[in-house]
Amino acid sequence: MSDVKTAISPKRAQDYPVWYQEVVREADLAENSDVRGCMVIKPWGYGIWENMQQALNRMFKATGHKNAYFPLFIPLSYLAKEAEHVEGFAKECAVVTHHRLEAAPDGGLRPAPSAQLTEPLVVRPTSETIIGASFAKWVKSYRDLPILINQWANVVRWEMRTRLFLRTAEFLWQEGHTAHETEAEARDETNKMLKVYAEFARDYMAVPVFTGEKTEGERFPGAVQTLCIEAMMQDRKALQAGTSHFLGQNFAKSSGIRFLSRENKEELAWTTSWGVSTRLIGCLIMVHADDDGMIMPPRLSPTHVVILPITPKPETRDAVIKAARELAEQIRAQYFNRAPIDVEVDERDLPGGAKSWEWVKKGVPVRIELGPRDLEKGSVALYRRDQGVKDKTFPAAADAVSSLPALLQEIQDSLYQRALTLREQHTKKIDSKEEFYAFFTPKNRDKPEIHGGFALSHFNGSPAVEEQLKNDLKVTVRCIPHDLDAEPGTCIFTGEPSRQRVIFAKAY
Amino acid sequence: MSDVKTAISPKRAQDYPVWYQEVVREADLAENSDVRGCMVIKPWGYGIWENMQQALNRMFKATGHKNAYFPLFIPLSYLAKEAEHVEGFAKECAVVTHHRLEAAPDGGLRPAPSAQLTEPLVVRPTSETIIGASFAKWVKSYRDLPILINQWANVVRWEMRTRLFLRTAEFLWQEGHTAHETEAEARDETNKMLKVYAEFARDYMAVPVFTGEKTEGERFPGAVQTLCIEAMMQDRKALQAGTSHFLGQNFAKSSGIRFLSRENKEELAWTTSWGVSTRLIGCLIMVHADDDGMIMPPRLSPTHVVILPITPKPETRDAVIKAARELAEQIRAQYFNRAPIDVEVDERDLPGGAKSWEWVKKGVPVRIELGPRDLEKGSVALYRRDQGVKDKTFPAAADAVSSLPALLQEIQDSLYQRALTLREQHTKKIDSKEEFYAFFTPKNRDKPEIHGGFALSHFNGSPAVEEQLKNDLKVTVRCIPHDLDAEPGTCIFTGEPSRQRVIFAKAY
Repeated sequence: MSDVKTAISPKRAQDYPVWYQEVVREADLAENSDVRGCMVIKPWGYGIWENMQQALNRMFKATGHKNAYFPLFIPLSYLAKEAEHVEGFAKECAVVTHHRLEAAPDGGLRPAPSAQLTEPLVVRPTSETIIGASFAKWVKSYRDLPILINQWANVVRWEMRTRLFLRTAEFLWQEGHTAHETEAEARDETNKMLKVYAEFARDYMAVPVFTGEKTEGERFPGAVQTLCIEAMMQDRKALQAGTSHFLGQNFAKSSGIRFLSRENKEELAWTTSWGVSTRLIGCLIMVHADDDGMIMPPRLSPTHVVILPITPKPETRDAVIKAARELAEQIRAQYFNRAPIDVEVDERDLPGGAKSWEWVKKGVPVRIELGPRDLEKGSVALYRRDQGVKDKTFPAAADAVSSLPALLQEIQDSLYQRALTLREQHTKKIDSKEEFYAFFTPKNRDKPEIHGGFALSHFNGSPAVEEQLKNDLKVTVRCIPHDLDAEPGTCIFTGEPSRQRVIFAKAY
Repeated sequence: MSDVKTAISPKRAQDYPVWYQEVVREADLAENSDVRGCMVIKPWGYGIWENMQQALNRMFKATGHKNAYFPLFIPLSYLAKEAEHVEGFAKECAVVTHHRLEAAPDGGLRPAPSAQLTEPLVVRPTSETIIGASFAKWVKSYRDLPILINQWANVVRWEMRTRLFLRTAEFLWQEGHTAHETEAEARDETNKMLKVYAEFARDYMAVPVFTGEKTEGERFPGAVQTLCIEAMMQDRKALQAGTSHFLGQNFAKSSGIRFLSRENKEELAWTTSWGVSTRLIGCLIMVHADDDGMIMPPRLSPTHVVILPITPKPETRDAVIKAARELAEQIRAQYFNRAPIDVEVDERDLPGGAKSWEWVKKGVPVRIELGPRDLEKGSVALYRRDQGVKDKTFPAAADAVSSLPALLQEIQDSLYQRALTLREQHTKKIDSKEEFYAFFTPKNRDKPEIHGGFALSHFNGSPAVEEQLKNDLKVTVRCIPHDLDAEPGTCIFTGEPSRQRVIFAKAY
């Protein structure tokens, strides 16, 4: 098997991290820029993000949220308030200190010393503080609550070791921020948005996730409770794909979000925040791509179908191109996921094999080849990207068109099932420390093979043990899961009683 | 007339700049933040921007463009290259010099001296340089051209005097960047996108615009040709609503966008850039709003119809609310502008008058009131925002529903006609310098009244005269118009021959 030539080299099993980079490159999704840690998201990658935005916007709107936009810059004093308040708030951020450039003595440009800001500004790493300042102005009485806001924005967190989509200095995300009259309402919101994320992962990304709560050590600084969705990648590591935080009254206190209650008393609001980012594109790749490149879940694919006209002879070229365009029109009249099917005819003057492989690597769900002989027979050659690269069927053209909506959903479902199967194969109840250590230790220490997975083990919640596991194995508690029945037992590390199993894994 | 009470005070005629601010505030569109020059775009304002994005995305896609995303930060050396190349490139920008915060001796936070960047980064004021660097990597041969990219992004230009939407330090925009094989193709692109903007202004914003070319003094630094659309505000000043630049090979040279031609020679690409920003929201307000607040053109309104249930007595409340919701469902089944009509039932427990005025000020195109007596009669009370605030009709409920798609388009058209009429009233052929100066001089110098407009005058293109007019009258050449027949004449300032009339105005 290992000498079958594939479009991506190395293969997943050979070197997973390099395979990932190669898929990003070969699928034309993104690239590094000359600016440290900042990426260029290329059209094929940005198209996924736009589809994610559209789907999430629909779900956010259906749950009563509205989009708004807040400043990119945060006055240092806002963060200082937080830093007092929130132990361990991230301090690695981009700091603006000047507002003008001038000619430097060496002929280049430099920040003008005369244009130094009295108060430095921080490029937002997250917007709790700046949005909190607005909420404080907007809220006067309980009648002004709840406030249910979402923002699509770029944020910056200075990262030393970056990886495209997974960890970059600048990334794109959405951040929901809400303020409520009561604790119960804010807790409901936190849960509701976690559920939205889990549904989005399942129905759009075709990624099964566990939902649950973070332990104290993994909580968002300042949050009372951090909920998350966790997905298994093909190297069996976990990726935190979205978080929803119940912030209690902590941020309301530091931002001054106070309101006159129904009892005419001044009270602090209860707030939440929740977000997902372009990291989800990294998740999609690591869950679905294979050794031939990306495989797009149809509901997020920028293009659903590509038609490749086969034109071996000049004399049949016109007829084939014409038929391909007509076929595209018929396909566009079909609907999938509430919109016309997106189809492209690739008429570029390049060798057919090169074109075909380009689309394989980009992961377009369906490829249709149409040549002079197909025209004669009234059929097409149809390839599904979720099946073998060379596997094809020869439906009549009309049948191909009419079957596409169902076919795209079938591909969507098959990707989900495949991911679910992988997760089930590598999620194990582990009931002893020895077995746990063996599970997370590669056999080949020099060149570690893909190993481990999700361990479901009893745990009594001691931060010291968490620290130990991180140091010994790079394993963390991913979440205290909601999806599993709570079954009491004995902590495999301390022998103390445990209320339920938690999910352990290595993680991105 | 002047003592009729209106929702916005002062009125346009009394103090136009303050009236503008009040409309922005009372319509709940945006507000200033604590961060100098940065605004908070509130949901009702951001909704307009989202609708603009959607319409423009459709038009950009139809003309072959794809969206992508490039870094927020630009290395200083990139701009230094430009500064050599482009005389007068804007230097007022936000400069990032540090990448970490640390505790300050006074207990607050400060940029960590140990985390100073070797090369400062500039927050993008525009992305020609950073996108050019990517294009240089992407283009190898003529086969890779054209590249047709658009980016939706935030940009920052340090401004000393800011005004919500019209001039802010941070604003949102789209910037198109394209690279072509030939000069002719790049010039075509520049014209094509100007036409897209003019169509967008007319069909979506209901704003008539003149299209034309900027004089040398008003050109984008580094451009060979800057085309623009110019609109007339209700104070008869001009607002530049969009620009499209033909950059020649200037930026290709500084970025190194070179390709192997069909003749197998290395050549520089021809590039263009074009953009519109959240400034367009300021334009919408200044063209359509009146002394009672905003008036939304239906095609960009975040909500098309609001239903206000009138519930004077508790015993009829349930029936009215139920009927209002049913009416909303029927309205949502109607289409306008390719999507279901967006309708909101305002069930808030507030006095009817207050609610109604809120929607007047927000400028929702259609208000429908529904009370117990309307229910008995099977009719509704319908208000059009483009007509008198108290004018209403009483159509049967079913007729109101079925007539909405046509009614919304009628409102859209009436707003356009009104703006066109205003522009026609105040666009004048002026053939002497004396008349020109009189046209642009207010009668009341202490408290200048709304005056002037667009002057169409012959002009021979001398930069010295332009400078003089700027100093004397604050009047500039808005554009050398495409929309008017070129008719030769004599420059009214110098007596020299002139090829055509140009448009002069005071401007934002």
